[in-house]
Amino acid sequence: VPAPVAGFRFAALEAGIKKRGGLDLGLLLADAPVTAAAVLTRNRVRAAPVQLTAERIRAGRARAVLVNAGCANAATGRPGLAAARATTAALARVLGAPEEQVLPASTGVIGALLPAEKILPRVAELVAAARPEGLDAFSRAILTTDRGPKLAEAVARVGARTARVVGVAKGAGMIHPDMATTLAFVVTDAAIAAAPLRSALRAATDATFNALTVDGDTSTNDTLVCMASGRAGNAAIRGPGPAYRAFVAALTAVLEALGKQIVADGEGAEHLVTVEVVGARSAAEARAAARAVATSNLVKTALFGKDPNWGRILGAAGRSGARFDPERVALRIGGVPIVRRGVGLGPDAEARAHEVMRRPEYEITLDLGAGRAAARYLTCDLGHGYVSCNADYRS
Amino acid sequence: VPAPVAGFRFAALEAGIKKRGGLDLGLLLADAPVTAAAVLTRNRVRAAPVQLTAERIRAGRARAVLVNAGCANAATGRPGLAAARATTAALARVLGAPEEQVLPASTGVIGALLPAEKILPRVAELVAAARPEGLDAFSRAILTTDRGPKLAEAVARVGARTARVVGVAKGAGMIHPDMATTLAFVVTDAAIAAAPLRSALRAATDATFNALTVDGDTSTNDTLVCMASGRAGNAAIRGPGPAYRAFVAALTAVLEALGKQIVADGEGAEHLVTVEVVGARSAAEARAAARAVATSNLVKTALFGKDPNWGRILGAAGRSGARFDPERVALRIGGVPIVRRGVGLGPDAEARAHEVMRRPEYEITLDLGAGRAAARYLTCDLGHGYVSCNADYRS
Repeated sequence: VPAPVAGFRFAALEAGIKKRGGLDLGLLLADAPVTAAAVLTRNRVRAAPVQLTAERIRAGRARAVLVNAGCANAATGRPGLAAARATTAALARVLGAPEEQVLPASTGVIGALLPAEKILPRVAELVAAARPEGLDAFSRAILTTDRGPKLAEAVARVGARTARVVGVAKGAGMIHPDMATTLAFVVTDAAIAAAPLRSALRAATDATFNALTVDGDTSTNDTLVCMASGRAGNAAIRGPGPAYRAFVAALTAVLEALGKQIVADGEGAEHLVTVEVVGARSAAEARAAARAVATSNLVKTALFGKDPNWGRILGAAGRSGARFDPERVALRIGGVPIVRRGVGLGPDAEARAHEVMRRPEYEITLDLGAGRAAARYLTCDLGHGYVSCNADYRS
Repeated sequence: VPAPVAGFRFAALEAGIKKRGGLDLGLLLADAPVTAAAVLTRNRVRAAPVQLTAERIRAGRARAVLVNAGCANAATGRPGLAAARATTAALARVLGAPEEQVLPASTGVIGALLPAEKILPRVAELVAAARPEGLDAFSRAILTTDRGPKLAEAVARVGARTARVVGVAKGAGMIHPDMATTLAFVVTDAAIAAAPLRSALRAATDATFNALTVDGDTSTNDTLVCMASGRAGNAAIRGPGPAYRAFVAALTAVLEALGKQIVADGEGAEHLVTVEVVGARSAAEARAAARAVATSNLVKTALFGKDPNWGRILGAAGRSGARFDPERVALRIGGVPIVRRGVGLGPDAEARAHEVMRRPEYEITLDLGAGRAAARYLTCDLGHGYVSCNADYRS
């Protein structure tokens, strides 16, 4: 667990929201109002907490995040919004802060109304329990089908000071690009204004959370909040420059590490696979091809079976819209060449690729032979664990 | 098995192409050259037989289709094209027909070269065996992972005569819209010119094969060929009118029945589910929403688990691009209302929906409450059978 970040405290407790019990209510608390930014789901069906957070984050300042697992409070209509308002208002009262500075976040089953009555009586206790060392408990309180907590940290040289960036996430299913995907919270002691924090978060998200997939679905609750206390003492970052770039790099590193942990934890997944497409005619085509391969169920079941079924990989790329000549394509699995000029290299190559595919982590490199653009996509295998996990989720 | 169609004969034999043995080489033979049309995969990676068939079908006339299972002859470069040319040329010689009137089709593992040496010595025997009653054997020779043959028939009143339309298909995986999907062959004794036959086939495909999904992937080999002998004796259909409409209706009925059999046979599938979206703002949005729901792995695993997890259905529709107000959405599963005005109707409704979901076939109706457009999509559940089938396919 990363060391505390100056200006932030965490707490967690068991409020009885998760059916199976365990920590399910978490608090991320800044000592004072701080700069904040968020990336939220673009799904048209947005949970009540996402609707409230979208409103409240516009000011670029926040004091706390109140998060629960076990109930998504999505598709719950006005009662859902009322419950999110009531619980965050109660927390605001205890803190003596404006309601607008408290952001709600929820994860769990869609359609169940947030049980405000289980949360309201515990809010004061939660605030009292908040400590700089509370991240470990917090990281566990936000989990649902995850196999374990996800944490990452990085440092950035900002002017004459060193800033720390620490992130925590939950997520194993419903992970897909172009949505914020998952719940994730990042705190930093860097001093940075709201507008550059927002653009830094966008840039870091595009390169990481928006280029990974578990099952192609997206959630009604995806929320990524970043809060900056300014306690590192650097001259506040107000726009482009070395400090901004260093901060984006650190933020990207944290989100990338969290993203890898999420995909590796893909419900029931056994292999973390990076799909790299090179030789594409444009970045957009490289991304389209990488995405088609990374999201193909036929490819993903072959990864599960450790089957170097390169025909499925070529087939997925072939329907992606990327322009290429199939007779110029080359493919490597974990560095083992398996296709050259569109033709398979035979059983020996496949046997060596099969060995590579036993590893928990490896790379597939598809060279379209059509240009110079490249893109990467993180994915995982689709096996019996995924089916069991998702078929039994609510029963 | 449908009765013979005047003007056509079929044959099948075991040529040793399928690893596991069994019938794997089929012949569809017209007594004389007939009108023909085809719909082929739009995947950029096209198997050798698809490339040849695309060239040869342009003339709108064909005498025979030579089809094999067990080897897709895809991504096999020039040797693959040479093998497809050699085998169809051999058949043309036996028939005394021009090469261009023999269409090749292959299905099976990608990357394996067609073993022409196993086919060439058997061609004369295949022609000699062709009989009007040979459809049953032919229907089994084209199968790969299918649980059984797929056959369908319909009749059309064309002028003063009745024409028959008989179709045969293979396919259980790699089934997805906007591609011809699967191997399918349709024969009819209707008299129809090449241009209207082509447009009829397009229209019938859009309404059927292009609105069903098993796993969202598409094949390098998808081929649908329709041949018309004219033996019904009707005045040849040359353009729009009652006879054309009747023929399109019969062709659509045949493709719809084959499509249902394909989805029901979706590798390891246990439930055939029609996703109907109504109340959309446009037909395109209705189709996008139906497609997003039908292809969502989270929805499909819930179908496998008989879990009326309506949150996943709403979530999938929410990311489809269709415009709607989540608070006006209604959902029924097999006729059981489960969501009204965006809010779940509770445990009793879910228990009743769960009962419906035990059935081998049912319907999900999502009303977006935003307009008057509707669309349907056929899908199936995603369970352990799918994973086993696709992870072990080549091993």
